[in-house]
Amino acid sequence: MTFTEIVWTKEVKLKDAILLEGLPGVGNVGKLAAMHLIDELKAKKCMEIYSSHFPPQVLIDDDGIVNLVNNELYFYKNKEGRDLLFLVGEYQGMDSSGQYDLCQKLIEIVKDIGVTTIYTLGGYGLGKLVPEPRVLGAATSKEIVKLFKKANVEFIDGEPGAGIVGASGLLLGLGKLQGIHGGCLMGETSGYMVDPKSASIVLKSLQKLLGVKIDIKELEERAKQVDSITNQLKDIDTNESIDKPDVNYIG
Amino acid sequence: MTFTEIVWTKEVKLKDAILLEGLPGVGNVGKLAAMHLIDELKAKKCMEIYSSHFPPQVLIDDDGIVNLVNNELYFYKNKEGRDLLFLVGEYQGMDSSGQYDLCQKLIEIVKDIGVTTIYTLGGYGLGKLVPEPRVLGAATSKEIVKLFKKANVEFIDGEPGAGIVGASGLLLGLGKLQGIHGGCLMGETSGYMVDPKSASIVLKSLQKLLGVKIDIKELEERAKQVDSITNQLKDIDTNESIDKPDVNYIG
Amino acid sequence: MTFTEIVWTKEVKLKDAILLEGLPGVGNVGKLAAMHLIDELKAKKCMEIYSSHFPPQVLIDDDGIVNLVNNELYFYKNKEGRDLLFLVGEYQGMDSSGQYDLCQKLIEIVKDIGVTTIYTLGGYGLGKLVPEPRVLGAATSKEIVKLFKKANVEFIDGEPGAGIVGASGLLLGLGKLQGIHGGCLMGETSGYMVDPKSASIVLKSLQKLLGVKIDIKELEERAKQVDSITNQLKDIDTNESIDKPDVNYIG
Amino acid sequence: MTFTEIVWTKEVKLKDAILLEGLPGVGNVGKLAAMHLIDELKAKKCMEIYSSHFPPQVLIDDDGIVNLVNNELYFYKNKEGRDLLFLVGEYQGMDSSGQYDLCQKLIEIVKDIGVTTIYTLGGYGLGKLVPEPRVLGAATSKEIVKLFKKANVEFIDGEPGAGIVGASGLLLGLGKLQGIHGGCLMGETSGYMVDPKSASIVLKSLQKLLGVKIDIKELEERAKQVDSITNQLKDIDTNESIDKPDVNYIG
Repeated sequence: MTFTEIVWTKEVKLKDAILLEGLPGVGNVGKLAAMHLIDELKAKKCMEIYSSHFPPQVLIDDDGIVNLVNNELYFYKNKEGRDLLFLVGEYQGMDSSGQYDLCQKLIEIVKDIGVTTIYTLGGYGLGKLVPEPRVLGAATSKEIVKLFKKANVEFIDGEPGAGIVGASGLLLGLGKLQGIHGGCLMGETSGYMVDPKSASIVLKSLQKLLGVKIDIKELEERAKQVDSITNQLKDIDTNESIDKPDVNYIG
Repeated sequence: MTFTEIVWTKEVKLKDAILLEGLPGVGNVGKLAAMHLIDELKAKKCMEIYSSHFPPQVLIDDDGIVNLVNNELYFYKNKEGRDLLFLVGEYQGMDSSGQYDLCQKLIEIVKDIGVTTIYTLGGYGLGKLVPEPRVLGAATSKEIVKLFKKANVEFIDGEPGAGIVGASGLLLGLGKLQGIHGGCLMGETSGYMVDPKSASIVLKSLQKLLGVKIDIKELEERAKQVDSITNQLKDIDTNESIDKPDVNYIG
Repeated sequence: MTFTEIVWTKEVKLKDAILLEGLPGVGNVGKLAAMHLIDELKAKKCMEIYSSHFPPQVLIDDDGIVNLVNNELYFYKNKEGRDLLFLVGEYQGMDSSGQYDLCQKLIEIVKDIGVTTIYTLGGYGLGKLVPEPRVLGAATSKEIVKLFKKANVEFIDGEPGAGIVGASGLLLGLGKLQGIHGGCLMGETSGYMVDPKSASIVLKSLQKLLGVKIDIKELEERAKQVDSITNQLKDIDTNESIDKPDVNYIG
Repeated sequence: MTFTEIVWTKEVKLKDAILLEGLPGVGNVGKLAAMHLIDELKAKKCMEIYSSHFPPQVLIDDDGIVNLVNNELYFYKNKEGRDLLFLVGEYQGMDSSGQYDLCQKLIEIVKDIGVTTIYTLGGYGLGKLVPEPRVLGAATSKEIVKLFKKANVEFIDGEPGAGIVGASGLLLGLGKLQGIHGGCLMGETSGYMVDPKSASIVLKSLQKLLGVKIDIKELEERAKQVDSITNQLKDIDTNESIDKPDVNYIG
């Protein structure tokens, strides 16, 4: 009854590669970071994954052409370090068993392509503005915890308390069961809006981990714009409080 | 655990046929248009499709006879142009994986009957009254985009922004994966009520595309009735606003 | 992933039997009618049906013994007319695809036992008190419509407008697809409470249809009790309106 | 589409063993009792069970290591009585069919390990504070009812009225279908908070049933703390009522 269909757009084999998952999530931090890396490294698409676990929906591009919602893999053959494979898309699997099913299949697929480590990228929602976001980590082995710590990733007891939900968690948990180790990088974020600042600090840690050098100016520029809008909103909010007389004192 | 059962009511083979999907949706625009074409062309039923993806429900006709809810295919052998096959029914599949499953099966079925192109018909809800609705389009290939433009179908950047959800989208998206191209015709509509006016403009574009000539007077008549009722409601609404003094000016 | 398990408590074969479905539903009319027939005819249990489509729940009897929720079949070898098989239980399948799956399996099972006709029993909720409930009908063939009419079952155009939802509808709709005909008897009821009066009029029609003679005094007695409670509640309601001064006029 | 994966952490065979289920539930009574027994008896883990019926989630331990949510089996070879196997975990199966599927699989697994009896542990929520909670019982056979009564387990007609929902019920109901008998011990609890007092009385009955002697002081200590907090909250509540003048007497 369920179906998952793979379309290779370019046959590719990688060696001892790292999978970087950047599907939509809190603050779209992981997605922004992964998409930025893909752009900067000029990674190429190698696979489209269609599945009945995604919404029954087509998207329409600027030419009026419809495309069924999917997940996509992009690859980057890295001369300075380990090869990279990116998992991005508009959606995660919609329900719990769909997420398990998709992540199981994705792990099989990326193993075949040559992935031996999984890094998942996400946001850690704090429910309030975060002026100086940190990158929090979690991993499937002590070795990766050590590795992450060297890249300014912080490990805080009992954080995140609810664990990690969705693809960023499942790919690690199911990967571990299949002998593929990995870790999650979570940029702190309010969770209220798309957060390029959080994505840019995740990228700073990632650069150290992956041995790639990329330009993150554009993300930082967008982060400034978001900050500026947020500040304007705060100003309006403050002014309104001042202007608005306290009704209880009237009459 | 799921079941889909096909009942041929008339064995039929078509040649290079176009599937026209008109299942219930926004403003029932697609359904109205498809049913009108079936009536005018005197298309004949060839198949009933029963499925556990529909609600667990029977409908009762005027003679007290119960019928399990289903989808149905009607065919029309067209001497002036390409053969037509119609997909209509009271329901779409109820959940997401059910929609994928049904649409996959339907594409297999209509391919076997001889369908090589899929046109899906639907409404595009604007959330407000639309005095002069347009027909918007989306398609799986540039050739069909061109074809549609010649038939007064408009393509507007980023519309519909959310893509196309349900059978009208999935049949195109899944069809494309299986090498069957097609497009969607969406009549603009308020989305608040069944909209024969929107259906009639979709039919005007369809006549050009299909090379059939049909009478749409009856639909236009119903459109006028709906307009007249809408105007009466607006009048009542306006009068009420006049009678009702503006509370802000009192006291 | 789903499971359905059958436990024969008594191997039985019937000849040209009628299935009477009385699962829980609106006003529990069908269940009351079926259980009363089972009691009066001293029908014997022959099968328990367990399924993952029922709630994950055990019930506890007066001796503290737990029993997994199930559906059950009872049989009655009728010397005066056609053999009877009863389908009763505490639950219907919980979701739509579960209902399809269970009803498909039940039809297979009862066919094997010897069922050739299906009568489903239910309530038709009117949303208001019904002093003189009627029995409404629907059927899969014109022959059964005629048969029902002779037994004081009424057929009213477009009633019930929403068709019949759940096992009472599905058993007929799916049965029809498999060549087993049948009909539904619906006792009018408020839908607000368990309704023995509605069940007793359904039984009156059933007696004529089945050629059995049973005592329905006990049900009529319970119907009177419910009526009496309803009237007391109405009185209280009326008195309160009288006694309660209109607050707007005080002070 | 669904998956369940078993990881043996220690191969083990038991003889005529009792399964003790202590998954999360009302007041976490069963979980507290089972975890306390595991700690006191120094039972060892022998199996981890992963399944798509659990949430798509990893938990993070104090070292920053992620672990996919699961259920676990612990065993205890009992020289004084029957061997014990414990079923514990952070979650039960998430939906109804998932619970059936998991419990079916679990019964197969524990049968293979050597389980011949199932005791499930839970809380019975009363919706109010319970100063002197009792242990209520239900069982699959009269023999076990008798056995439980000797261990101060009470059987009250029609309690619990709604039966037992979830793993504590299903393991008994499905076990009975497969010829494994058992019973459920339910500690009365408010249902508002984690309840160590209710867990400790369940343990008192269990000690008699299992022929093990364990220290429950720590649980009783925690029960006192909860009682003390509850009393403080009641005091605050009472004082507030005293301070707050009765509005009805004013004016």
